[in-house]
Amino acid sequence: MAAAQFGAETSSAGEFVRQANRFTDRITADGSDGVPVEPGRYRLVVSKACPWAHRSLIVRGLLGLQDALSLAVVDPIRDERGWRFSLDPAGRDPVLGIEFLSQAYLARDPEFTGRVTVPAVVDTTTGQVVTNDYPTISLDLSTQWRAYHRSGAPDLYPAAHRAEIDAVMEPIFRNINNGVYRAGFAVSQEAYQHAFDDLFGELDRVADRLATRRYLVGDSITEADIRLFTTLVRFDAVYHGHFKCNRHKLTELPVLWAYARDLFQTPGFGDTVDFDHIKRHYYRTHHEINPSGIVPAGPDLAGWHAPSGRQVLGGSPFGAGTAPESS
Amino acid sequence: MAAAQFGAETSSAGEFVRQANRFTDRITADGSDGVPVEPGRYRLVVSKACPWAHRSLIVRGLLGLQDALSLAVVDPIRDERGWRFSLDPAGRDPVLGIEFLSQAYLARDPEFTGRVTVPAVVDTTTGQVVTNDYPTISLDLSTQWRAYHRSGAPDLYPAAHRAEIDAVMEPIFRNINNGVYRAGFAVSQEAYQHAFDDLFGELDRVADRLATRRYLVGDSITEADIRLFTTLVRFDAVYHGHFKCNRHKLTELPVLWAYARDLFQTPGFGDTVDFDHIKRHYYRTHHEINPSGIVPAGPDLAGWHAPSGRQVLGGSPFGAGTAPESS
Repeated sequence: MAAAQFGAETSSAGEFVRQANRFTDRITADGSDGVPVEPGRYRLVVSKACPWAHRSLIVRGLLGLQDALSLAVVDPIRDERGWRFSLDPAGRDPVLGIEFLSQAYLARDPEFTGRVTVPAVVDTTTGQVVTNDYPTISLDLSTQWRAYHRSGAPDLYPAAHRAEIDAVMEPIFRNINNGVYRAGFAVSQEAYQHAFDDLFGELDRVADRLATRRYLVGDSITEADIRLFTTLVRFDAVYHGHFKCNRHKLTELPVLWAYARDLFQTPGFGDTVDFDHIKRHYYRTHHEINPSGIVPAGPDLAGWHAPSGRQVLGGSPFGAGTAPESS
Repeated sequence: MAAAQFGAETSSAGEFVRQANRFTDRITADGSDGVPVEPGRYRLVVSKACPWAHRSLIVRGLLGLQDALSLAVVDPIRDERGWRFSLDPAGRDPVLGIEFLSQAYLARDPEFTGRVTVPAVVDTTTGQVVTNDYPTISLDLSTQWRAYHRSGAPDLYPAAHRAEIDAVMEPIFRNINNGVYRAGFAVSQEAYQHAFDDLFGELDRVADRLATRRYLVGDSITEADIRLFTTLVRFDAVYHGHFKCNRHKLTELPVLWAYARDLFQTPGFGDTVDFDHIKRHYYRTHHEINPSGIVPAGPDLAGWHAPSGRQVLGGSPFGAGTAPESS
């Protein structure tokens, strides 16, 4: 049925149950997992379509890690061979020399049979994937790579607020970040309805929280805002129609729409968004949901540049830090 | 591909080309086609999901023809046997005694192999379909059935305005009424894009026309408004997502949204709208577009009852006539 390509991730009740991330080694300052932070050694592989990868792309840019951690961008259209480096000359990543991200997965584990996912961090000295554990990748960029942060880099995971950030992010992950997938990949009406109710219930709660504060936690941008943003920015372009998350468009939810625009217009956010990659990926990769492969011409995106008016709520996007140079 | 069920209606360029209506006899006051107007003789068969049938349902109600022309409503979900009377006891239309509308088509023409469509008018004395020619059916209710109109029935196709009404309706049919189908059933990106551009270009032109006048032609409701309404009322519920008509939602087009609400709140319009039938029909009948058959829980419909503010533009919904009694 609809989620046949995710058959191994569909429950008997028709629910989408995301697979666990297979590789979870942490690249740390002290090298405790055998893969120490080292500038130039690792390669971050992302799809600009993917919200989980988008987190790490934003964080890398805000922290100024571009020189320390190189970037590979896969083709937004995933075929039966998975994520491909077909945007690169001769269809190969110029650093890793591979055509498919799966090659780095199999280099690490020849028995790997799960779904190959982004983001992934690959060790260029071995060609092996080190981690595809997206929640840890972005947090470790904040906490473990400090020696290579740019001057003025913001603290996106400040120690004083971590408990609150973690508490805020948990239901956002469950009901929003993963909730849109639970709605879109459900293969029973009941599983879909459950996901839909969870999603919009959580969006309403988050909107209440954001009605009087500019950012989710504290007075500046944190990892929590980045994680919410990567789903909101895709909402009307793909989740509303393709995943049937259609109680309202984001543009019809005034608080969240202004919040998302405010972030979009902040250096390091909107300049990382590629609506073309986003739309082509979802509409041309999930044949079970969109057999024709036709990519909608809408929505009109002009509104993303309208003033948000959120500055009156106070706060400062980068706290004691500064904005990144525009990319 | 996407429109396989309409394979005979798909061009080599991937465009949806609607079949011609097969049966075009006219039920007239003078019986010129052999089927004279006669109260109680004919049965109007509609789906409440179908915009073409919806026209005749609205006109019949506004003109008070309920006693003269009886009504059959088919199940919104069409399976491989076509439109079914499965909402009726024992799954048979109580007057015609048939289970499938196709039986009335085959009674008229045993060689019929086209797509069985609604609206259809069936002669109860023969069991044969007389006409499935939707543009003529609703106009003939206005012009040929006058002897049976209620007292105070509005003139929906006034002689003095016919040329203008016809001229206004033609591009609305091509680009909007049929345009949403051309977008939704396109099987090439180019055919889709062409339909999308035609659709929203025409919606913009119609919005300009309606910015300063309450109705499309003259100062009161005509057939032209009814034909535009039946597409607009379905726009956000099905065309926006299912047919990828997503430059904007109707709720994001201020003039058209207010115009549609004004009509929805007029007796004889909103009381004929069945959003449940509409959503279930589109999302559960077109497997090529929505293989899972899951019906979206949205959109939020509460806005249809908000004041339109259109009364300030003047005009009177029923001209010299009166509103129908609420059904």
